[in-house]
Amino acid sequence: MALAEAETTLPDPKMAQGGAFIDGAFVPVQDAKISVLDFGLTRSDCTYDVVGVWKGRFFRLDRHLDRFEASCERLRLALPLSREELEATLHRLVALTGLEDAYVSMTLTRGRPNPAAPRDPRQCVPNFYAYAIPYVWLANEAQQAKGLALKIARDVARISRRSVDQRTKNYHWLDLEMALLHALDDGADSVLLMDIDGNLTEGPGYNVFAYRDGVWSTPDTNVLEGITRGAVLDLLAEMNVGSSVRPMTEDDLFGAEEVIVTTTAGGVMPVTAVDGRPVGDGTPGPQAARLKALYWDKHTDPAWSVPVDRTA
Amino acid sequence: MALAEAETTLPDPKMAQGGAFIDGAFVPVQDAKISVLDFGLTRSDCTYDVVGVWKGRFFRLDRHLDRFEASCERLRLALPLSREELEATLHRLVALTGLEDAYVSMTLTRGRPNPAAPRDPRQCVPNFYAYAIPYVWLANEAQQAKGLALKIARDVARISRRSVDQRTKNYHWLDLEMALLHALDDGADSVLLMDIDGNLTEGPGYNVFAYRDGVWSTPDTNVLEGITRGAVLDLLAEMNVGSSVRPMTEDDLFGAEEVIVTTTAGGVMPVTAVDGRPVGDGTPGPQAARLKALYWDKHTDPAWSVPVDRTA
Ligand SMILES: Cc1ncc(COP(=O)(O)O)c(C=O)c1O
Ligand SMILES: Cc1ncc(COP(=O)(O)O)c(C=O)c1O
Repeated sequence: MALAEAETTLPDPKMAQGGAFIDGAFVPVQDAKISVLDFGLTRSDCTYDVVGVWKGRFFRLDRHLDRFEASCERLRLALPLSREELEATLHRLVALTGLEDAYVSMTLTRGRPNPAAPRDPRQCVPNFYAYAIPYVWLANEAQQAKGLALKIARDVARISRRSVDQRTKNYHWLDLEMALLHALDDGADSVLLMDIDGNLTEGPGYNVFAYRDGVWSTPDTNVLEGITRGAVLDLLAEMNVGSSVRPMTEDDLFGAEEVIVTTTAGGVMPVTAVDGRPVGDGTPGPQAARLKALYWDKHTDPAWSVPVDRTA
Repeated sequence: MALAEAETTLPDPKMAQGGAFIDGAFVPVQDAKISVLDFGLTRSDCTYDVVGVWKGRFFRLDRHLDRFEASCERLRLALPLSREELEATLHRLVALTGLEDAYVSMTLTRGRPNPAAPRDPRQCVPNFYAYAIPYVWLANEAQQAKGLALKIARDVARISRRSVDQRTKNYHWLDLEMALLHALDDGADSVLLMDIDGNLTEGPGYNVFAYRDGVWSTPDTNVLEGITRGAVLDLLAEMNVGSSVRPMTEDDLFGAEEVIVTTTAGGVMPVTAVDGRPVGDGTPGPQAARLKALYWDKHTDPAWSVPVDRTA
């Protein structure tokens, strides 16, 4: 495209509510479907990643693609697209939707069983698809202004890393979903899970940090290594604020001055209650506010984001 | 239908390779697809069951439906069909395929997120679908004649019941799939997993039994309570052979005279090697052969099976 003038991808009004790339074609997201026989469904044998687009710019796309490729490799799923093709597909997809703020998900599944060897995952042809929908907020504005009230799950443990490597982003969420249902019943906004040994892990779709004595801490294992978590660690280094990635327990939350959760679906969000007890004075704290502001600033910083390529 | 003559459901040639009931309609199985946004996929927040049809008869359909309904209840998924409607749907589905020997799967997913509350599973409308395909064999005839060679997974533990209740039939299979890939690489036919405490559990799609000193034993917890496992326990009672549902370890396999696996996808199948060591004399044993014969006999016994209703 260096010499010829590149064509601009115009938004397709049919994709204004979201678009997908599936079975090799771009379609409205409501038409994006996979076979009920795909092992991605019947064995949750798949991996995925979600990157945010904000004000027409992908946030840390490279890190999401690195994580996605590493996840595919760990599951021994061969991506049918090169890195360049993958990137171009996501750019084109977002351009087709016309969305300025988007939640962009990509999945690689094991594919459908081969009838000649129905139980051999090695005989499957992996199935790639992606979709872009309007930006998803874990917490709405009112919830963020007030701060989230979280519960700690007492009767469900996060799936152990000895069973599923949580660094591989995966759809094994029944533990998170059941814990979430209980927490919502109890009037909380969401939930945090411990691992089987009582260490703090993560919640349905987010990592957690606690601030105390000048240091932000976040659990070290049995969690997804969130890109937002990584962004927060990088921001803290830039700000010269201490951080620690270490084993944590619920006591680290009860003793914290501030608590946040981090996710691509909403960024940095303050937590003001844990199990009904206030965190600090029970209102969003100044450290969280600084981090949140800086996090959003970085969305227009070329070192942290790239514009959606409307010629891809 | 007592007075009026019921109409017979004729097979639809388009469903000869399998049919599905999805979105309220009967379609060829290759057209059965679900939205990539359904939480059944993106959170594996769903449950399912699989019942066999053999020689035109459902095997222990009631038990499968009981288990399915119990699974739905545990996940707080409201089935949109009554028991009678569910049964009639499955009968009609199999009749439409014309299959005499079928693998009949039914799934209830959480459904798609409600855009107004995208993270609240309680706001979803559950999505039911079912499909019938030609009978699936975990092991082919040659493998069954020789007996299966299984490996014990050493680096992956079965997902703990403290995270996911294995009595609820579920699609959280990455532990099983990863262990299976390693076992297939090593030349085994399939794999067995331990739980986190080193107790024997199950394999990808089957339960396990070991025979010694006149008693068949099978693991008590952290397993799906297989309908085939239940059938074997009932057959043993009929045969006046001892059985024991108890904690087991790998030593119970190494010390066994015979070993079998049990699943709707193939019934009772002998295991003749574990981790490369022969079970007994390394050939399928007489106890397993008796059980297998009786298991298949029961498929035409009206106390154990019902004919496919071609007027449903
Ligand atoms: C289980 C889990 N933990 C943490 C996160 C946060 O990761 P990221 O910051 O990359 O969005 C997610 C994201 O969806 C998640 O699913
Ligand atoms: C994990 C697991 N264990 C055991 C079984 C055997 O259960 P059933 O005999 O009901 O088919 C299955 C069936 O698919 C299964 O998925």
